[in-house]
Amino acid sequence: MSRRFQVVGIGNSIVDVLAHCEDAFLTDNGVEKGIMQLIDTQRAAELYGKMGPAKEISGGSAANTIAGIAALGGCTAYVGKVKDDQLGDIFAHDIRAQGAVFEVPRSPAEATHETGRCMVLVTPDAERSMNTYLGVSEHLGPDDIDVAMMVDAEWIYLEGYRFDGDLSHAAFAKAIEACKGAGGKVSLTLSDPFCVERHRDAFRTMIRDHVDLLFCNEHEMQAMYQLTTLDDCLAVAGQEVETVACTIGASGALMVRDGQTVHAPASAAEVVDVTGAGDLFAAGFLHGIVNSADLLTCGKMGCIAAAEVIGHIGARPEADLKALFLREGL
Amino acid sequence: MSRRFQVVGIGNSIVDVLAHCEDAFLTDNGVEKGIMQLIDTQRAAELYGKMGPAKEISGGSAANTIAGIAALGGCTAYVGKVKDDQLGDIFAHDIRAQGAVFEVPRSPAEATHETGRCMVLVTPDAERSMNTYLGVSEHLGPDDIDVAMMVDAEWIYLEGYRFDGDLSHAAFAKAIEACKGAGGKVSLTLSDPFCVERHRDAFRTMIRDHVDLLFCNEHEMQAMYQLTTLDDCLAVAGQEVETVACTIGASGALMVRDGQTVHAPASAAEVVDVTGAGDLFAAGFLHGIVNSADLLTCGKMGCIAAAEVIGHIGARPEADLKALFLREGL
Repeated sequence: MSRRFQVVGIGNSIVDVLAHCEDAFLTDNGVEKGIMQLIDTQRAAELYGKMGPAKEISGGSAANTIAGIAALGGCTAYVGKVKDDQLGDIFAHDIRAQGAVFEVPRSPAEATHETGRCMVLVTPDAERSMNTYLGVSEHLGPDDIDVAMMVDAEWIYLEGYRFDGDLSHAAFAKAIEACKGAGGKVSLTLSDPFCVERHRDAFRTMIRDHVDLLFCNEHEMQAMYQLTTLDDCLAVAGQEVETVACTIGASGALMVRDGQTVHAPASAAEVVDVTGAGDLFAAGFLHGIVNSADLLTCGKMGCIAAAEVIGHIGARPEADLKALFLREGL
Repeated sequence: MSRRFQVVGIGNSIVDVLAHCEDAFLTDNGVEKGIMQLIDTQRAAELYGKMGPAKEISGGSAANTIAGIAALGGCTAYVGKVKDDQLGDIFAHDIRAQGAVFEVPRSPAEATHETGRCMVLVTPDAERSMNTYLGVSEHLGPDDIDVAMMVDAEWIYLEGYRFDGDLSHAAFAKAIEACKGAGGKVSLTLSDPFCVERHRDAFRTMIRDHVDLLFCNEHEMQAMYQLTTLDDCLAVAGQEVETVACTIGASGALMVRDGQTVHAPASAAEVVDVTGAGDLFAAGFLHGIVNSADLLTCGKMGCIAAAEVIGHIGARPEADLKALFLREGL
C-alpha cells in the first residue's frame, strides 16, 4: 500500500509525572497498586502535594505506541487533545520530535481544562500505579478526526482508555468508518481491566464488527471474556477478530490467528519501571505487521520493544529499537 | 548553632529540558559544547523545535545544591523566582518535595516572563551543553530576600550565574549583610568560566570582603585569577578566602585552608550525564561543613554526591546519598 501513514493512533494526550515511592505511600494515600485510576483536579493537587520530586516525560498509551513506531522509522500520526499551555507544548514537541505527525488543534490558553497528566508512582518492585487527571484529553470528539488522515492510514490504533464519554465514541466511529471505508484496518488495545469493565459490551460489539487486531494483556482478556482460563478466552477472541496479541507479563506474549496460537518469549530486561510495557509491545508488533512480518516475528519485535522501555524510567523508547531488532536477527 | 537553616541557596530557578543528541547537532545549530549559553525567547523556541524528545527535570545550579543538602536531611531553604505557570508548579513542587523551604512569591500568571528553563543537550560522551532561557528567574531582586531567613541561616550559598543584573547584585548584597550581620557565613560558586569573565572584578571584591567558602572548578579558578598554573591560582585564592573547594574533573577535588592543600579523590562512577556534578559536589561538601567534618571528609562527601548525579540523567540526586556516605565509612 502507498498510503501516507502506516499507523495513526488515537488516545489520551498525557504528560507523565513520574516519581519513586515506597509501597506505604500508596496505602497511606489510597492509591491502588498497579492499575490506572482516574482522578479529578482536587485529588490531583492533593496527591501531587504529597508525592516526592518527579520527572516529567510525555506519555499517553496510544501516544507511546505511536512514538515507538516513529522511533522505528514508521510513518505515523497521533490524534489527541492538548491545551495551549506549557504541558501541551511539551507533549506536542516530544511526539513531533520523535517523527510523528500531530496536527490536532489545541484548546486555547483561556480554556478551563489543562493538558492531561498522569502521576505515575513507581514502587521498588518497578510496578507503576497511575493516577490520571485527563484534563482536556477527555474532550476528544468527532471534530478532531481528520477524515483525510484516516483514509490515508494503513492501520488505525485505538486506545481503550479514550472510550470513556460519548464524544469519543463518536470520534472512534468516525475514524473507523473513514479508515475501513478506504480499505484500512483497525487495531484496538483494551488498555486496562477496569476499562474493560466499564465498556465490555461496547468493546465486544466494536471487536466483532470492526477490529482486525486486538491488543490486551491476560488480565484484560479475562475481564473481557470472563471465562475460566486464558486459553478459553483467547479461543473465543480468536474467532471474533483476525489477530489477537495478548501479553503475559514476564512470559512474553501469545498471539492467535487462524485458530493457531503462537508464543513469543519475553526479552531479557532489567526491570526499572514497567510503565509503557504494553504500549511498546504494540509498537513493536505493529511495526512487524506493517512490514509484513510473520506472527512470531511481530511478537518478538513487540517483546524487544517492551523490554527496552521497562529498563528505564518513562514510557517512551530511549535506545535505538531498530538496532535491538537487528541484534536479535529481526 | 541553633539556627533554623543550615544552608539557604540563592540562584536561578530553572526547569531542565534534557535530550540526547549527537555532536553534529551541536555544530549544526551553533551550540558551544560543554558550557552554559544564555539564550532569548526566539532562540529557545528555535532550538526546542529542532531538538529531540526530552525529559523535564527541575534544575538550577543552587537549587540542585539545596535539593542535595535536603536529600541528606539538612535544613535548607531556596530563594529564586518562578512564575505562576505549569513549569513554576513543577519547580516549586520538586524542591519542596525534597524537603527545602521555598517561599518566594511567584510572578503572576499574566506576567510576561515565564519560568526559566534550560535545554540541556547530552552528547554520547556524557558532556552537557546548556542553553538557558532565564525567564522570570532573572528578575530576582532585593524584595525577594527575606531578611529573617538570612539571619536564621548558618550559611548562605550564592550562585555566580545569578550575578547578571543590578537587581540581583542588590539581592546578594542584602542577603550577605543580613547573614553576616547575624554571624552566619557566605559561600559562593563561580558557576562557569564565562560567568567569571563577565564579573571578575565584582566577584573578586565579593570574595575578599565577604566570602568564607569558595566553590569552583579548575577552569573557573583559572579564569578568576588568570595565573599560569592551577596551584598558583589556588595559592592566591587561599589567601583571600577561608576555604577554597575546587573540583578537578575526573581527578576529584582540591581544597585549600590555612595554606594547606588537601586532595579528595573522585568516586567511581559510570558517567551518563555530567549535568549537576559541581552542584552536587557543593551539596556534599556543605553537608560536611555544617556537620563539622574535617576538610578531607567534606571533599569526599562532595565527590560521592557528584558521582551519584553523573550516573543518571538529570541534576537532582536519585539514590540515597546518606547510604552512599555510610558505605564509604563517612
